[in-house]
Amino acid sequence: VTAGSSWIEGDAWPSTALPLGVVEFDGRARPATAVGDHVVDLAGLASVGLLDGALDDPVERFSTPRLDALLAAGPTAWHGLRGRLLELVTDRGAARRMSPHVVPLAAVRPRLAWTVADYVDFYSSLDHATNVGRIFRPGEDPLPEAWRQLPIGYHGRAGTVMVSGTDVIRPCGLRPDRDGVSFGPSLQLDVEVEVGFVVGGHTSPGERVPPSAFADHVFGVVLVNDWSARDVQAFEYRPLGPFLGKSFATSVSAWIVPLEALEPARVAPPTQDPRPSAHLLPAGDAYDLDLELEIAGHVVSRPRFAGTYWTAAQQLAHLTSNGATLRPGDLYASGTVSGATAAERGCLLELTWGGRDELSLGDGSARTWLEDGDVVTIRGSAPGAGGGRLPLAEVTGRVQPAHH
Amino acid sequence: VTAGSSWIEGDAWPSTALPLGVVEFDGRARPATAVGDHVVDLAGLASVGLLDGALDDPVERFSTPRLDALLAAGPTAWHGLRGRLLELVTDRGAARRMSPHVVPLAAVRPRLAWTVADYVDFYSSLDHATNVGRIFRPGEDPLPEAWRQLPIGYHGRAGTVMVSGTDVIRPCGLRPDRDGVSFGPSLQLDVEVEVGFVVGGHTSPGERVPPSAFADHVFGVVLVNDWSARDVQAFEYRPLGPFLGKSFATSVSAWIVPLEALEPARVAPPTQDPRPSAHLLPAGDAYDLDLELEIAGHVVSRPRFAGTYWTAAQQLAHLTSNGATLRPGDLYASGTVSGATAAERGCLLELTWGGRDELSLGDGSARTWLEDGDVVTIRGSAPGAGGGRLPLAEVTGRVQPAHH
Repeated sequence: VTAGSSWIEGDAWPSTALPLGVVEFDGRARPATAVGDHVVDLAGLASVGLLDGALDDPVERFSTPRLDALLAAGPTAWHGLRGRLLELVTDRGAARRMSPHVVPLAAVRPRLAWTVADYVDFYSSLDHATNVGRIFRPGEDPLPEAWRQLPIGYHGRAGTVMVSGTDVIRPCGLRPDRDGVSFGPSLQLDVEVEVGFVVGGHTSPGERVPPSAFADHVFGVVLVNDWSARDVQAFEYRPLGPFLGKSFATSVSAWIVPLEALEPARVAPPTQDPRPSAHLLPAGDAYDLDLELEIAGHVVSRPRFAGTYWTAAQQLAHLTSNGATLRPGDLYASGTVSGATAAERGCLLELTWGGRDELSLGDGSARTWLEDGDVVTIRGSAPGAGGGRLPLAEVTGRVQPAHH
Repeated sequence: VTAGSSWIEGDAWPSTALPLGVVEFDGRARPATAVGDHVVDLAGLASVGLLDGALDDPVERFSTPRLDALLAAGPTAWHGLRGRLLELVTDRGAARRMSPHVVPLAAVRPRLAWTVADYVDFYSSLDHATNVGRIFRPGEDPLPEAWRQLPIGYHGRAGTVMVSGTDVIRPCGLRPDRDGVSFGPSLQLDVEVEVGFVVGGHTSPGERVPPSAFADHVFGVVLVNDWSARDVQAFEYRPLGPFLGKSFATSVSAWIVPLEALEPARVAPPTQDPRPSAHLLPAGDAYDLDLELEIAGHVVSRPRFAGTYWTAAQQLAHLTSNGATLRPGDLYASGTVSGATAAERGCLLELTWGGRDELSLGDGSARTWLEDGDVVTIRGSAPGAGGGRLPLAEVTGRVQPAHH
């Protein structure tokens, strides 16, 4: 399929992206795609037969305000839908029938696009893991023993994954302060720049997904802000890992960019030494995503996803290597994306070296940790078809004061 | 409400238990309660008006083969339903109208009773945590620094929670063997005896549930077998906690025993020293549950839940203390229940001291870890009304060989 230019106006979303989400307008939420400065109502298209033959049961699949049924349908349906949408949005002849279902982006409110089944967070950036080890465990080998042998990860809280734009309330917790350890608002609220992968389809107990089957199980990509209370996390995490330091909120993009749209972003992965276990090979592709972290209106970091040590395909293979099943709506994220230089670090923990160094915002103000009222926005883009850039959907949120 | 004896025959379930579950018969799965040696079809009762006035929308709430809508309804509905069921099963005059909806237990197949939203596993037994620390981290202080200040916990995989009776496939993973570290079937498959709490209703972001509000948010209790691959777990768990060593399977009882049925089991909790943070006080009640672990037909351990250091009310208060929301269907478990003596240890890791000592099964056979074909069953009971015993629903499963 070659990308044509769309008859739908605006330049926020090229017609080759066709991200999927759920938006509310006229008092009702419905699945949609975005083209130009507009959204296209998929329930509407299905209702007038414009999606017939592109996938099974289009009316039924888009009848609820979640993409769950589409995620369950699997890769043939995803491919069929994408092909049909690309035809429709680039065929001026379809404009008359499409128009009743096209609405300006500015007139809709995004909702969480799908029901998050299980949420797993990895720790796949070598620079991030090394920096965190140095900060949290000075004097020890910064990389955990198993780090180069498997993509370390853990389960997060699926019920507190929230759509971009949702306010985040500063969490309370037990953390060190001047008087020892006491319960109160986190004093070290942080952000983590991550890339998330949205899973579709089911697997059976005992089944393993090899890295080569990645695209059969992953529908697309969101940006993730894995908000973190570093003081709470540091106090609680031994030996069972992060819990309340993370579980209060995880923000994701309103729009899922399909993996198919990211074909031009595929690049060779970094070299892995030592050679991983056979079940993690071949490693699959890396994705050349340029990320950007903005805090209180100032871009503070530009991490690049392509250098992440473990690929997304390896993360999925590892996640299922013990036979754990996948469900439609499972989400897994890369862990903080950081590079070798200070300008590529994806969290304040690294940018301020555990709060030791102030981070200048360039306007005379500075941060060690997030302040109430701060808006945090993560943006991303990838190489697109024909030499252009393809945007990922941003993820943004404002910090609200703790509840007492 | 005083318990009368039921006109429904059999003695598996006293009429004061009224556990809720989902069973399949005549080709259809439906919510049910159990009395004597029978189940009572709640969708059936609702359809003929027998639940009218006991809770809102009874037909709608029991229209799907999951208890999700009942869990969402909250404590007033739970109480109303329980009161009505107790009337119906103890009133011989109701027998004629009830009978079409009463089916022998032996004729039904249990299904997973509810959709598990998020699953959290705690680490609340002092004896268990101390033993594990000694085995996994010899030479260090066995109790993690924060252990006496907060109930340590982490998120598990909700999608692999399975109903009692489901086979468990031995997981594969990276673990040490004679040749170093390689990928293969776990050589140290273990069981964990736990008590699980099923949450109903929602909370709002930033809201905390104090221990005193425990009964407004917890519908009831299941037994939990948190199957564990100790070799996989030991290799992977630093620094983000258990992941693949646990995520392949967690088994739960087919029947949820309502918290209201466990009123007679409430006892004073153990002394906590140092005094916990104010948000974890007052501690709430402990529950006097006697547990029993059977492996391959032999009872190997009898842990007692009453001595668990952190109460279930404190676990819930901690889980929400950072403002994380609850959803209907959230499940949290106590962590392995172990007592001070070897006969009260709730997992093979402790019973065999990390595989060092064989555990005799009493018939000449012995185990260090689970073998393929082993059936593991956890049973439990509590003081009931009027001096009798109230059963909890057992959780059982057979180990199947690894998939290669």
